[in-house]
Amino acid sequence: MAHPQVTFRNTTFTGNSILVSRRNTVASTTLKAQLEQFKTTGRYTCFELKWHPTYDDHSMWPVPKHLFWDSDLAKWIEGACYFLESHYDEEIDDAVRYIVKTIRSAQQEDGYLNLHYTVVDPKGRWSNIRDMHELYNCGHLIEAALAHRNYYKNNDLLEPLIKYVSLISNVFGPENDKLHAYPGHPEIEMALLRLYVETGNEDAYRLTRYFVEERGNSTGQDGKLYYDWEAEKRQESPWKRPSHYPEAGAHWYNQAHAPILEQQTIEGHSVRALYLLTAVADLLCMEKRGLAPMNKSSEWLATLHRLWDNMVDKKMYVTGGIGAIKQWEGFGIDYFLPQSTDEGGCYSETCASIAIMFLAERLLAIDLDGRYGDVMELCLYNNVMTAMSLDGKSFTYVNQLGSSEADKSGREDWFWCACCPPNYSRLFGSLGGYLWHYGEDQGETYINVHLYTSARVVFQTTHGTVELEQQSHWPWDGTVSFTLQQPKDTRTTVRLRIPAWTNSTFTLDPPLPEKPKYNPISKGYLTLSPDYVAANPNFTLKLMGFTPRWLEPHPYTSQNTVFLARGPIIYCAEDAQNPWETNHFKDVAVKPGQAAVREESRVWEPTGESYITLHTKAWTRSLRAWKDGQLGTGPVREGGEVELVDERDIVFVPYYFRANSGGKGHMRVGLIKG
Amino acid sequence: MAHPQVTFRNTTFTGNSILVSRRNTVASTTLKAQLEQFKTTGRYTCFELKWHPTYDDHSMWPVPKHLFWDSDLAKWIEGACYFLESHYDEEIDDAVRYIVKTIRSAQQEDGYLNLHYTVVDPKGRWSNIRDMHELYNCGHLIEAALAHRNYYKNNDLLEPLIKYVSLISNVFGPENDKLHAYPGHPEIEMALLRLYVETGNEDAYRLTRYFVEERGNSTGQDGKLYYDWEAEKRQESPWKRPSHYPEAGAHWYNQAHAPILEQQTIEGHSVRALYLLTAVADLLCMEKRGLAPMNKSSEWLATLHRLWDNMVDKKMYVTGGIGAIKQWEGFGIDYFLPQSTDEGGCYSETCASIAIMFLAERLLAIDLDGRYGDVMELCLYNNVMTAMSLDGKSFTYVNQLGSSEADKSGREDWFWCACCPPNYSRLFGSLGGYLWHYGEDQGETYINVHLYTSARVVFQTTHGTVELEQQSHWPWDGTVSFTLQQPKDTRTTVRLRIPAWTNSTFTLDPPLPEKPKYNPISKGYLTLSPDYVAANPNFTLKLMGFTPRWLEPHPYTSQNTVFLARGPIIYCAEDAQNPWETNHFKDVAVKPGQAAVREESRVWEPTGESYITLHTKAWTRSLRAWKDGQLGTGPVREGGEVELVDERDIVFVPYYFRANSGGKGHMRVGLIKG
Repeated sequence: MAHPQVTFRNTTFTGNSILVSRRNTVASTTLKAQLEQFKTTGRYTCFELKWHPTYDDHSMWPVPKHLFWDSDLAKWIEGACYFLESHYDEEIDDAVRYIVKTIRSAQQEDGYLNLHYTVVDPKGRWSNIRDMHELYNCGHLIEAALAHRNYYKNNDLLEPLIKYVSLISNVFGPENDKLHAYPGHPEIEMALLRLYVETGNEDAYRLTRYFVEERGNSTGQDGKLYYDWEAEKRQESPWKRPSHYPEAGAHWYNQAHAPILEQQTIEGHSVRALYLLTAVADLLCMEKRGLAPMNKSSEWLATLHRLWDNMVDKKMYVTGGIGAIKQWEGFGIDYFLPQSTDEGGCYSETCASIAIMFLAERLLAIDLDGRYGDVMELCLYNNVMTAMSLDGKSFTYVNQLGSSEADKSGREDWFWCACCPPNYSRLFGSLGGYLWHYGEDQGETYINVHLYTSARVVFQTTHGTVELEQQSHWPWDGTVSFTLQQPKDTRTTVRLRIPAWTNSTFTLDPPLPEKPKYNPISKGYLTLSPDYVAANPNFTLKLMGFTPRWLEPHPYTSQNTVFLARGPIIYCAEDAQNPWETNHFKDVAVKPGQAAVREESRVWEPTGESYITLHTKAWTRSLRAWKDGQLGTGPVREGGEVELVDERDIVFVPYYFRANSGGKGHMRVGLIKG
Repeated sequence: MAHPQVTFRNTTFTGNSILVSRRNTVASTTLKAQLEQFKTTGRYTCFELKWHPTYDDHSMWPVPKHLFWDSDLAKWIEGACYFLESHYDEEIDDAVRYIVKTIRSAQQEDGYLNLHYTVVDPKGRWSNIRDMHELYNCGHLIEAALAHRNYYKNNDLLEPLIKYVSLISNVFGPENDKLHAYPGHPEIEMALLRLYVETGNEDAYRLTRYFVEERGNSTGQDGKLYYDWEAEKRQESPWKRPSHYPEAGAHWYNQAHAPILEQQTIEGHSVRALYLLTAVADLLCMEKRGLAPMNKSSEWLATLHRLWDNMVDKKMYVTGGIGAIKQWEGFGIDYFLPQSTDEGGCYSETCASIAIMFLAERLLAIDLDGRYGDVMELCLYNNVMTAMSLDGKSFTYVNQLGSSEADKSGREDWFWCACCPPNYSRLFGSLGGYLWHYGEDQGETYINVHLYTSARVVFQTTHGTVELEQQSHWPWDGTVSFTLQQPKDTRTTVRLRIPAWTNSTFTLDPPLPEKPKYNPISKGYLTLSPDYVAANPNFTLKLMGFTPRWLEPHPYTSQNTVFLARGPIIYCAEDAQNPWETNHFKDVAVKPGQAAVREESRVWEPTGESYITLHTKAWTRSLRAWKDGQLGTGPVREGGEVELVDERDIVFVPYYFRANSGGKGHMRVGLIKG
């Protein structure tokens, strides 16, 4: 078993897909832009452990603004190491070496390694596991260290982290003299499992099991929930709580309101929830691969399915965004999915959709189902890809589906809480790891293709080297040509994802035998048998459905809107291409099925990448009949049809494309269904 | 100038209107049911100042459950005193006398009079003005005392309250040695102004002016906002905050985020907001009547209009309910008006709509505009009247427009925070005060009729006694017959409200002269000149619009629903009359304009009151096409029309009528527009 952050090294992107374009931009521009931000904000040199003026900023209890600096650097190192292999750059190389050196030098005698509790509050270690992100930061440093080792082939960063893990393992655990705690922000669980898989570190595995199984134990520490116990120990009033907690004791904020196995719906901070479930899925993957047995694995799997279904069926935006509620950066009630803050919320944090990709990748390994692949792709091309400008220099944290005067569509150079930009970098650095799963199983080779693009994977089997190449103009066209090279005597099964939005309409060339001995399509994957691929090492899948389609939200969302999609791409309208718009498309209606939608191929000159715009007619909903308060009885009027006026041409662009073309920052994904 | 709680004594309800029916029920049943609750919960004897087990309950910081007991008793006394005059009852009389005696005996040497800080926390007086309701409780006791004096013609209750006000006046004020505070929960401001008007108590007037003008002063106490200053003095972390505060420092919760004159939108806890604005309006009324000059009165009036408009045009439910958000029992963002908790919220507290009536009554006195009268009536017949069962024994606190499994439609016998039931009683006790404004102005008499029913008002003028009687079957029929009796030489102008929902269609009999010398209709009122009424002491207004009408919510509310109304009554569907319903009418659609609506007159046997049911056709929205997650991309489907199936008869009943006929507690006001 290997994680995508390792297996990506077997994949080479080819051609000029938008994935290649984006990877090149991150390598050439983004990593350096982020490095520049590190230098101007104080992050770059922070592990020299000198005082920085930011440390005096106590404006946001309990989280000081520098609390995530460790993880910002770690995620950047991780991304940099992924890219150095394919896009070597001396400046990046030097910066990685410098930061790693300072991290090594910042480690304390006993192995402790954390900026805040070394420089700012040396006496406070482990006193606030709920809020203070010590374990989260450590997790990201572990992931950086593993990436670093894989590229540099040395343990300069891993060594101090292993020492730190050893310390942590002495602090946390079921033994009486240890803290019965679990991270306020899950992350380290995923990192420790990578550490275990790559190095065999037993402490790492045991810790993760403990963190996952202990979480939400209402009597875990001296008969109390750990977070309540530690708050008492801090002599905090039970009513003192971070702003993310809507009320005292709302431990669902960080998924600690109940043991994970008892959680019926997905709740709270969405990144925390998804990181946590990814670790759970990792444990199940490891069991499946025979690496480590898991207790109650069928219950854990049912929990994963239950929470995934709740998320995807009732709490996910059409863009793959999750989290409607700003206050806790997380999930609202079922079907509560307003498009914008002026309509009640929409958070859709970039990191949360990246985390969905993490979880989907694991679920695909446990249980091959196109449902996971479809969502992974949806997130990638929409809520994730919109998070960086095409020039690679600016980013989003929140990804609303509709703008408003208070929250315009745009991007920022940086954030004080800068989790998202380096998360984007490291995802794109390891993106090859998400395209396919492959390997040997009971003497036969398999390649399950999840994402289409132009790329080649090469891996070793007991028979020798297997290579599969795919070529396509994805996501704009559904024709994907494959070439398989395999040693003699290799029997390889290839499975190809058939996205749900194709309605299973596709052709395969050469075609399958008229009566295959097996059901060729199961749970969203087309299976090509070893005989077929041996006979046809060159084959072409042609997926239909690459025409514009209108999507309608579930009625319980109370969104009287429609969304325009094409293939895996979700579209939006913005004022840059529709300069007539003045009110964030709040009153703009379209007529699915009545007004035709025309496609137009375009090229974005700065990167040379192609994209498709969609063109149809739009109308404006007249509110003349809705003069406020005309009845003096609330915002109502006496009945009648809504009047649509001012027929116009409207241009839709991919959601990821938004806020790259100037304009006033007016944008909307779902327009009124006229 | 006199308040409706005084002027109601000039009005006698006649006939058998639903107002009479409800008043009789309160007098015969409700006051005693509430008294019984007082006896079983410990409230009744609390001013004997013995310990009660409830005082040990610290489950809800910072508010102990007994914190409002003073006000519960006070509101009940107030309501009882209003009713004793028209519905004398010995048990009620005895209970009032007993409670008043204990309140007198509970007053401390220096005049202090508060249960919690006398029995439970004697050292804590005035230490938490933000949360602890001392001034709120005092306000209700003042109102009780004034009602008590008007009925009993003695000062047994008023005397201790005047002493308490004197103490309060030494504690709060602009002087350096006083607290620069203002009530966390406004109420006392209204009470003090009544005290001033009825007794001339100058302290009372000065205190209210101070509370209103000082509110929200960001540097009021030692350079800080008072609530921040006192929290520091309590050595509270700035992050310790009641659950109603969504985040630390969210002083908009109690309208203290800015000086009132600078508040642009109505925010926070809705009862607090409305009590506060009622006091502001009272101050303006007093200025208008020459009782006391006000600084910046045009700015204050503009503020009232601005906040009223924001509330009515963008934050009010069609039932007259306000407050979409449960967490702070108050206003959400503009146009955020979901019908039920499972759709994102709906609070619509009973007390809040009662408070709208308070404010509307004052605004009508300042500026005669049917907009205020329409809303006053809307609140009365819908969100307020639904708050008590027809048998007078059970009540609501929250008045959702749609039920859900977690929040069924129903009522409770009582609440630990029991503000609403006695508020209902005292409103109905003083209801006559809301029907009309009347008096003399520059030698001429005027009667402005705001609410139609069957009732008679008698008042004195310099010329002698004037009497106006109205008779109607309101709210079921729009014909209202008037009889005016006035002394010779009296010139009386009568103004009649023409509700906006009539679209100004009405007839007057005898008709006005063909070319009246004045514009007979202005801002929703029809003016009958002294000449007209002198010539026609018997006249009949026939208002049209008493047919069912469909109302549509503003598109920005994202409610794809319609509401059924008739006259001032808003209707709902409930399963008791529609036993086929199984899902809270969440998927039930109606077709305005396509399916006819038929009326049926009925009688509610227990009280003999009449009401009208509305009958039309309904369909069920099929969700078959919405199989969750069919696209694996969130709760969406590929386009198509929503299918309506299962045509059925549906019965609508008045919203106030809901939850009186058994059933499973399924109810909804707004149904899908099919």
